[in-house]
Amino acid sequence: MTYRDAGVDIDATSSAVGRIAERARAAFGATPAGTDGGPAAEIGHFGGMYRIPSGPDRLLVASADGVGTKLKLAFLLGGDAHERMGRDLVNHCVNDILALGARPLFFLDYFSTGVFDRDAFDGFVSGLVASCQDNGLALIGGETAEMPGMYAPGEYDAAGFIVGEVAPDRVIDGSDVRVGDILLGLPSGGLQTNGFSLARRIAGLTGDHEADRARLAEPLPGDEGQTIGSALLVGHASFRPVVVPLVEADGTIVRGMVHVTGGGLVDNVPRILAGDLAAEIDPSSWAVPPVFAWLVMAGAVPRRERYRAFNMGIGFVVAVRPEDESAARAALPNALPIGRVVRRSGGEAEQVLGLG
Amino acid sequence: MTYRDAGVDIDATSSAVGRIAERARAAFGATPAGTDGGPAAEIGHFGGMYRIPSGPDRLLVASADGVGTKLKLAFLLGGDAHERMGRDLVNHCVNDILALGARPLFFLDYFSTGVFDRDAFDGFVSGLVASCQDNGLALIGGETAEMPGMYAPGEYDAAGFIVGEVAPDRVIDGSDVRVGDILLGLPSGGLQTNGFSLARRIAGLTGDHEADRARLAEPLPGDEGQTIGSALLVGHASFRPVVVPLVEADGTIVRGMVHVTGGGLVDNVPRILAGDLAAEIDPSSWAVPPVFAWLVMAGAVPRRERYRAFNMGIGFVVAVRPEDESAARAALPNALPIGRVVRRSGGEAEQVLGLG
Repeated sequence: MTYRDAGVDIDATSSAVGRIAERARAAFGATPAGTDGGPAAEIGHFGGMYRIPSGPDRLLVASADGVGTKLKLAFLLGGDAHERMGRDLVNHCVNDILALGARPLFFLDYFSTGVFDRDAFDGFVSGLVASCQDNGLALIGGETAEMPGMYAPGEYDAAGFIVGEVAPDRVIDGSDVRVGDILLGLPSGGLQTNGFSLARRIAGLTGDHEADRARLAEPLPGDEGQTIGSALLVGHASFRPVVVPLVEADGTIVRGMVHVTGGGLVDNVPRILAGDLAAEIDPSSWAVPPVFAWLVMAGAVPRRERYRAFNMGIGFVVAVRPEDESAARAALPNALPIGRVVRRSGGEAEQVLGLG
Repeated sequence: MTYRDAGVDIDATSSAVGRIAERARAAFGATPAGTDGGPAAEIGHFGGMYRIPSGPDRLLVASADGVGTKLKLAFLLGGDAHERMGRDLVNHCVNDILALGARPLFFLDYFSTGVFDRDAFDGFVSGLVASCQDNGLALIGGETAEMPGMYAPGEYDAAGFIVGEVAPDRVIDGSDVRVGDILLGLPSGGLQTNGFSLARRIAGLTGDHEADRARLAEPLPGDEGQTIGSALLVGHASFRPVVVPLVEADGTIVRGMVHVTGGGLVDNVPRILAGDLAAEIDPSSWAVPPVFAWLVMAGAVPRRERYRAFNMGIGFVVAVRPEDESAARAALPNALPIGRVVRRSGGEAEQVLGLG
């Protein structure tokens, strides 16, 4: 009996890893200018290597994340959707460390599947590489695991791991947020990578692939220009292009940042609020994208639950002093004031008010 | 409809993350003495933070890995086996960066499951924390994903991400390995985390949990003191305690190191061999543990395939000059000479000779 008889094709996965190494060279070229740091070896060693130039104290900021059951849509839709998963994974990780003021340095991925599917994997890696390039991030390694019996045919799971850096005196952890600060919301454009288990349930996906594909091809109620599938698959954007210039131009304007991931505004905004602070958010201050309007209506999702299961159209939040609001909005053209920081009153259990 | 109706219990996963944060404090105390670096914040921010003290150029060495379908044994055996998975995950990652001469700094995990099971998760995290402490590694973050419909009931996947460091002039990437070098093998004691899909197939596990548990409880042929289950579940050891003192005592003794992971000796030894070199390995030079003897016999595994699907008892390989062999063996009490580096002759397709 051979390993292949048991469902593991080492040759297929190792030639796939060879192809990643080739494509990662493209991302290697994307090391930020103006530093002499960067990837120190090609993929293929037991670990990926990244050179940090000599210098003062620095904080490394790291995050691990996945794209959740948005993957299930990629399994149904195939094609470019796998590339989208790779991009979403990188962008999700970039936004996480961006929220602390960190500049991305390098990335590794974990891709696990039951039976290795070259097309899905190559699409996924194309997305990884493209988004690493866009974010000035080096792809220095990863793991591709073939695990027979762990995943349904055509399915896989994926995780991303990012490391970035920030000077210790420039870390933005929210400890400077205070009463009166304005919360600026940046539009997400879609679900990013959260709420898909609920969205799939509301959409009535049954697991019958043909029926599910037909359902995803239906026009989205409220926006006939999109299908349900295309609206759900809208990408998780990287907020780096707009946020980094603002943070680097003036280290004092941004007081706190929130990436609106699992738990929505309700669970994530408190991550930058001291225990005596609360956020008062006005949910009428931004236009909720049609996909959310449809989901919460079709699913009869209770009001508060909407803002915990979904981002409801706000993907990232930046806290600034009132006197800095106009400067911040000049740098973040799509940002809208969605609320403000208030004193938390004794009787309130919650730190996020106004959402039901 | 709520998120919980769709199978996602945010409260359960976020209270679990709270428990990790608490337990990670224990690992935080394990930051190596003699440096002023270390974790810079508790778990709960958007990213984990780790302070790198000012200093000269350094190489960060990172790796992503999983434990493969060894997980399937943990699902069957339950209890302490989940802790074993956490430990194996950390040790696997530690050994990967150790192979490049790197000292571990920090770790993040990815844990994904269909329906969150507190007992399995808490066991897994106990293993993570314990092994991080043992390896002087800070657990600074991670992701816990509940993905309904992605995993069978009671199942989960797990990935680990490690970052370590090494001075650029102390990196051991095998570029210094040459003809005549001695290959010292360190015993694995078991399958570590590779070959489980084949091993489960050979053991005749059917997916019927009751029958599979009975099968795993049978005595291991050739070693009646062990059951098949206990022999398969033997832990993936960290080689850090024996290898680091040797590397730190004398930066010139160790010329190359190999972590024998997926692909066995056949695929991993070449990772430290230049194109004109080959390794001549004598498979009779070490005692093959009974679990491998049974697996290759019961499965009629072809000779060469044995050394690719399984580590066959060698978990880590250290290459040294012949004149340094006795010093190296004094520092690595269980190491055995298993082969040597030779010139690769033109006609040979393979870089690892002697294994069939």
